[in-house]
Amino acid sequence: MEATKPQLERVAELLETLREQKPLVHCMTNTVVTGFTANILLALGAAPAMIDEAEEAEQFAGMANALLVNIGTLTHSQADAMRRAIGAANSAGRPWVLDPVAIGVLEFRTRFANEIKQQKPTIIRGNASEILALAGFSSATRGVDSGDSVEHAAEAAQQLAQETQATVLVTGETDCIATKNHDLMWIANGHPCMTHVTGVGCSQGALLAAFAAVAANAHEAALAGAVVMGLAGEMAAETTTCVGSYAVALLNALEAIDRKRICSCGRIL
Amino acid sequence: MEATKPQLERVAELLETLREQKPLVHCMTNTVVTGFTANILLALGAAPAMIDEAEEAEQFAGMANALLVNIGTLTHSQADAMRRAIGAANSAGRPWVLDPVAIGVLEFRTRFANEIKQQKPTIIRGNASEILALAGFSSATRGVDSGDSVEHAAEAAQQLAQETQATVLVTGETDCIATKNHDLMWIANGHPCMTHVTGVGCSQGALLAAFAAVAANAHEAALAGAVVMGLAGEMAAETTTCVGSYAVALLNALEAIDRKRICSCGRIL
Amino acid sequence: MEATKPQLERVAELLETLREQKPLVHCMTNTVVTGFTANILLALGAAPAMIDEAEEAEQFAGMANALLVNIGTLTHSQADAMRRAIGAANSAGRPWVLDPVAIGVLEFRTRFANEIKQQKPTIIRGNASEILALAGFSSATRGVDSGDSVEHAAEAAQQLAQETQATVLVTGETDCIATKNHDLMWIANGHPCMTHVTGVGCSQGALLAAFAAVAANAHEAALAGAVVMGLAGEMAAETTTCVGSYAVALLNALEAIDRKRICSCGRIL
Repeated sequence: MEATKPQLERVAELLETLREQKPLVHCMTNTVVTGFTANILLALGAAPAMIDEAEEAEQFAGMANALLVNIGTLTHSQADAMRRAIGAANSAGRPWVLDPVAIGVLEFRTRFANEIKQQKPTIIRGNASEILALAGFSSATRGVDSGDSVEHAAEAAQQLAQETQATVLVTGETDCIATKNHDLMWIANGHPCMTHVTGVGCSQGALLAAFAAVAANAHEAALAGAVVMGLAGEMAAETTTCVGSYAVALLNALEAIDRKRICSCGRIL
Repeated sequence: MEATKPQLERVAELLETLREQKPLVHCMTNTVVTGFTANILLALGAAPAMIDEAEEAEQFAGMANALLVNIGTLTHSQADAMRRAIGAANSAGRPWVLDPVAIGVLEFRTRFANEIKQQKPTIIRGNASEILALAGFSSATRGVDSGDSVEHAAEAAQQLAQETQATVLVTGETDCIATKNHDLMWIANGHPCMTHVTGVGCSQGALLAAFAAVAANAHEAALAGAVVMGLAGEMAAETTTCVGSYAVALLNALEAIDRKRICSCGRIL
Repeated sequence: MEATKPQLERVAELLETLREQKPLVHCMTNTVVTGFTANILLALGAAPAMIDEAEEAEQFAGMANALLVNIGTLTHSQADAMRRAIGAANSAGRPWVLDPVAIGVLEFRTRFANEIKQQKPTIIRGNASEILALAGFSSATRGVDSGDSVEHAAEAAQQLAQETQATVLVTGETDCIATKNHDLMWIANGHPCMTHVTGVGCSQGALLAAFAAVAANAHEAALAGAVVMGLAGEMAAETTTCVGSYAVALLNALEAIDRKRICSCGRIL
């Protein structure tokens, strides 16, 4: 664990920077998780804004500090707005995060995700099934839950990182980060209760965007997003493991998490 | 009460089956309750997926284990997607639940509900005013709340069950289940606080769909959905009756409810 | 403070009237806060209904007791529906509240807000930046948060009240109410935690609509909405200042607030 101490120190530093700078995160996300995602960003110390109308999304993506593109309830008009927002974010040099929810099963979103992965996402976040699908491997998903293991998806993540130049975060019991010219990195924080609350994964995408706005590169942003969300999940479970209370505790934990917790409990394998 | 013991044992058995099989429930529902509905399903032990884009909804309805159609914020594009999803669910032999929110007052949704009630819904769930309206009786609603009593709607429910072949659940202080060739069944579980939280009724529709995915028939699924939601409402009220805390407690209760509670506290009249 | 006692008594009276009459509030609002807004109205004692489809919105606005128009995630189809709902509300003599979220930055919504402010809103609610922008002054916003002080916006609020005949509530650390032919009124209730939860401001718009439905005029409705929401924010902070728990406590506080609290703790400057 000693060898990972500088990396955890850097995560703590990024969190402190985030709380000082309060990056404005433009969230284009699914209708199930908008409120929870906004509350997750506020708890962390960032500022959320959900803008989906095409003209406004294009205008706003160039003004916000980072953009989240989550296709969980993709419509044709949202897809058009996302295309314009991604273009504006790229033109303005803003990072953007792709969360390819439930691809591989549903054809419309799969086509769209395969299109926009070519538009230089900064970070791609997904469960094993989603990353396998986006990398062109076969997968076993049946909906929004993964039917595949993170270990199984690690090779796909590396290939996807190579292909897109993005950092790829595969989330699961152990998270895996793949970045071109980096070794795979594994993070062992988290708690099973996180999968019993809707929007935890989706809001992690927003958190990754917030970190990307203050980080030096995508790799350290992905690490920060994985460690901080995983630790918050553990902290929440120290308060309660009842599913309703847990969602509340998770927000409290994201507000409370600090350098000490990160450096003492972060688990980079 | 002794006479109802086998029925309550069956409800408990269905809940255990549901938790083992984790049915995937395709929810096409209103924008107010998407997050809460997903959390209710997760708390119960089922898996939610909200898919509204027409092409995807049609594709997904044939893959999910059950479909919920709730018209609380119906739009023309959602109506088209619902038509396609219902067709796919019927073709694949999947159960689907109709929740005709606020019909009788608003014309667009009333026309639509009257159209799709002919597409063989498995269960129809509504308050007294909604069931009266869907059966073609006059009602006294003014919005999403019922202005009529469940007792008053029982005859309408029977007629609607006859007409559509669906099982009809009328919810209120006492719930009523009408199924063709069955006597009316009355369930007395529940708590007034359930009406002080948005989405409790709507998410019960999702819960009915989850039970329909594992039940032998619509009648026992409706009974399980009525008893389990009503009991969870009572359990939550043992913790708190403050409106904000109650919503959290209701999720906790749906996770905690078990065979013992069902068999000792279920109240089939 | 003695001089404000009759005004606080009137606020308490309005709250009691609201709880007796349970006004039905038609909310056309943004997708981030629909569920929270509905829960805020239910906690207060009002009845929410979210109706956005154009035909239904027009029909319903004439039936509900008040209308909220919040443009936080405005789309072209929602804008059309809002135009029709506003027309119907005005024809039926129903009050309506305009919440011009994030205008001044985003062009589509800014044009729309400038259009509908001419349709006789009863109350306009916004942060300092939004009110400055709607009055045609320059502002310093960067998203949904205000970059300007309420004091700075007071003159703009007066001018906007003059121009539109609406009562204007500028919210911030101290709230300010501007009504034609009234002196500016300042309300000092509230708590910083209110800005850490998404939808507190937006749901205050719904609360203002509920009070407008039972008040004798817009000025006293705005006062009631400012005092009651501010006090609920203080009461919640007595329970917790953790961000997740605070959102729950705020709902509990809106349910618990009563005449005694209003008269003893309301702070009209």
